[in-house]
Amino acid sequence: MNPFNGRDLLSLQEWSVEDIERVLELAADLKQKFRIGVTTDYLKNKTFFMLFYASSTRTRNSFEAALTQLGGHAHYLNPKTMRAGDPGAPEAIADTAKVLSRYGHGIGIRIYFPQYGEGEKVIREYAKHASIPVVSMESDVYHPCQALADLMTIREKFKETKHLKYVQAWGYSPDALRVCAVPSSNILLMPRFGMDVTYVRPPEFTLHPDIIQQAKVNAETHGGSFTETDNLEEAIEDADIIYMRQHCTLDYGKHGPEKEQQIIDKYSDWTLTSDLLRLAKKSAVVMHCLPVDRDHEIASDVLDGPQSIVYDEAENRLHVQKAVLSLVM
Amino acid sequence: MNPFNGRDLLSLQEWSVEDIERVLELAADLKQKFRIGVTTDYLKNKTFFMLFYASSTRTRNSFEAALTQLGGHAHYLNPKTMRAGDPGAPEAIADTAKVLSRYGHGIGIRIYFPQYGEGEKVIREYAKHASIPVVSMESDVYHPCQALADLMTIREKFKETKHLKYVQAWGYSPDALRVCAVPSSNILLMPRFGMDVTYVRPPEFTLHPDIIQQAKVNAETHGGSFTETDNLEEAIEDADIIYMRQHCTLDYGKHGPEKEQQIIDKYSDWTLTSDLLRLAKKSAVVMHCLPVDRDHEIASDVLDGPQSIVYDEAENRLHVQKAVLSLVM
Amino acid sequence: MNPFNGRDLLSLQEWSVEDIERVLELAADLKQKFRIGVTTDYLKNKTFFMLFYASSTRTRNSFEAALTQLGGHAHYLNPKTMRAGDPGAPEAIADTAKVLSRYGHGIGIRIYFPQYGEGEKVIREYAKHASIPVVSMESDVYHPCQALADLMTIREKFKETKHLKYVQAWGYSPDALRVCAVPSSNILLMPRFGMDVTYVRPPEFTLHPDIIQQAKVNAETHGGSFTETDNLEEAIEDADIIYMRQHCTLDYGKHGPEKEQQIIDKYSDWTLTSDLLRLAKKSAVVMHCLPVDRDHEIASDVLDGPQSIVYDEAENRLHVQKAVLSLVM
Repeated sequence: MNPFNGRDLLSLQEWSVEDIERVLELAADLKQKFRIGVTTDYLKNKTFFMLFYASSTRTRNSFEAALTQLGGHAHYLNPKTMRAGDPGAPEAIADTAKVLSRYGHGIGIRIYFPQYGEGEKVIREYAKHASIPVVSMESDVYHPCQALADLMTIREKFKETKHLKYVQAWGYSPDALRVCAVPSSNILLMPRFGMDVTYVRPPEFTLHPDIIQQAKVNAETHGGSFTETDNLEEAIEDADIIYMRQHCTLDYGKHGPEKEQQIIDKYSDWTLTSDLLRLAKKSAVVMHCLPVDRDHEIASDVLDGPQSIVYDEAENRLHVQKAVLSLVM
Repeated sequence: MNPFNGRDLLSLQEWSVEDIERVLELAADLKQKFRIGVTTDYLKNKTFFMLFYASSTRTRNSFEAALTQLGGHAHYLNPKTMRAGDPGAPEAIADTAKVLSRYGHGIGIRIYFPQYGEGEKVIREYAKHASIPVVSMESDVYHPCQALADLMTIREKFKETKHLKYVQAWGYSPDALRVCAVPSSNILLMPRFGMDVTYVRPPEFTLHPDIIQQAKVNAETHGGSFTETDNLEEAIEDADIIYMRQHCTLDYGKHGPEKEQQIIDKYSDWTLTSDLLRLAKKSAVVMHCLPVDRDHEIASDVLDGPQSIVYDEAENRLHVQKAVLSLVM
Repeated sequence: MNPFNGRDLLSLQEWSVEDIERVLELAADLKQKFRIGVTTDYLKNKTFFMLFYASSTRTRNSFEAALTQLGGHAHYLNPKTMRAGDPGAPEAIADTAKVLSRYGHGIGIRIYFPQYGEGEKVIREYAKHASIPVVSMESDVYHPCQALADLMTIREKFKETKHLKYVQAWGYSPDALRVCAVPSSNILLMPRFGMDVTYVRPPEFTLHPDIIQQAKVNAETHGGSFTETDNLEEAIEDADIIYMRQHCTLDYGKHGPEKEQQIIDKYSDWTLTSDLLRLAKKSAVVMHCLPVDRDHEIASDVLDGPQSIVYDEAENRLHVQKAVLSLVM
């Protein structure tokens, strides 16, 4: 029997290193088959419901394409047109989750709020009442499919991940609402694969203490390390991997966008320029989950240069999601 | 030759008891196949157009899933983005119907208005000009797929439907716009399968006289019975089936939402509580087409209790629709 | 090797007469197979992205149905929900194009602006950065799939296209925003198949000089002819084909809707009535790409009469698009 059958993917913290290895193996195989055009009808005529409370390009298109390419179909759902599940909507989440469980084989949800943790609660409410697997397509806390794609991409570029210096860096963007899910998920995941993680951000932008604490535990348990700092240049020095991206403060939901903007604008020089990149190893790679704010978070010449692997990351979303869905649905 | 081929399903009144038996047989078979995971490519690569003038959860998802699971695909269409078919839109319904008839194999339409009967007219205008089958996904008058699912569910719970006491009850909900299609369709259908139908509602909420009259004729013809009353407690007494749900007055379109709300609020105690339910038979089942206004129409402990079969009803939408579409497309 | 593999279709001007013959051959074969219900899994499990910056009925439904009927799936995308590609949107077109190229097999784009040529630029920007084929679903300059469908339809009605009198006529409609893509594409294409094209419009509405000039070159090269006039009655005389449809002025983007409306309203008698049609050959056919403004552009009795072939045109969109996508994806 397939032990993945029926499992939720809400955060990778709930999946073992071995589970993740199985996903990456299958993802690599599916990537090869996609390239050479082999049909993979693994979810033939099956239905996946995608609930987008928040908008998306990569997530929607990579999930919808994943289902098609596995022989099934993903419903693109705007909860606003569903009278359902939205906080305040006329239909209870429990009812929506139970009904969708009768109609199909899996549910994906993207939802986040300025108030840290609220979206995550909604996803877990769905998962509690659904009898089919629920996959997080990003909450305000976790983005497991992005983290899987990022790990897969790192594995493709480096033979061995042990003691690679992975830098998760805050980057400047005047666009104030980018939730913490990506950096949180990645500083949790990378130490479990032996990487030495440096998380660098202006003091106001530190991630949730529970995330930081768990990242340290993960490092201790799996032989990686975890360091937090506000010195960008030191952090970049000798890096193997630089993942530079804006995220909001934990207090954003409380103090609102204007105050947030004031804090952000204090750090308008936090951009990954080619000068800054020179401090890293020559073999270093530059990552970003996209959409990127060009010339704010990362300079265009870096993004379009030979060290950028941002499109490979984006592509691997497709393959890891196919692998996860094939296993759980 | 398949005698269902190309037929419209606008109301069940236009389908014979024998036709409906064939649909329910096929639905039961498709339900088994869905559960055990047998592929049913009955509509392989076929196209079904879903026009949603009104929003939906169950209807959209059950139809879209039905198509996928039969090997085809349903287009989710918002007529507002189509320049088409909407009353007042630049393109005539006749033109939209004729063009869609060239592109695919079936059309589903959901449309209703405060003014009773207007949506039904639009659906019949499409059906007149389309050369492919048109299936009503609910108008202001009929909801044939819901009625089929309800009948299927009753059949699953009771071996014999003859002389079951079926109570169609108005229930309180401050949400004023729920059209009359479900109670109208069900009081028409259930007497044709020998049930004794009691329709109970506050005096202002009686359904259209033509519907009431036809329900009586149906009862006389098929051996069921039909009674209308405004005494809720008496109606519930000894019931086998209680279907309790708000619907609007026939004058809603004329007098508008404020006046409607005043009338509704006179009956804020029309809730199916566990006390009220105790008047019914111990074996009685509770139905609702969802979305339900919890603790207004039906108390949460009743909805989540052992007598509620609301999720089974919702599920059967999928199976009866698969059956109908497989037969007509 | 398939020489069409990976090619863009941005305008037919970039495709040779021989290329177009191959498309029409395949389209005729796919039309037969569709009618007799033969499965054509030519794009099994493949993904086509449809970016609709502008709304649509025929284009969306014919492309989405095409993919389903070829075994694949088309994503219906509103760039406004994508944070992507829209001029002014946070994500660069280059990034969106590159990412979509990793997820699927083709991209379709519909975009037009009041300012002539701007939408076309966006499509070509996508095509520059995408590594998968880009198909224009109509810009402000070209609508190649409509032109192909129109040519296919003409071919079906007439054995030989050489020296058919094809009249592209401006028609009155108070709806001011109809871009020039259809008449531009068609006066370019029809002379390449030997037709004698007359383009008739009020003086203010002439198409872009580059289009007019190229139409003349096409006529000289391929044995057709091209005439421009503002005399509607003379133009219609002895016509074999009358394609009568509103289009905006080239200056619409500069002078805005009010001024445009004033110019349009000077020509409120430019309607294809049955009286006007009597000037054409008895065997003449009437065309329009739909949606048509009934009784403004074309009188209803003409549209619904025996000379109208507008629904055949609409249908052929499906078949030519299936052919193009099967060849390039």
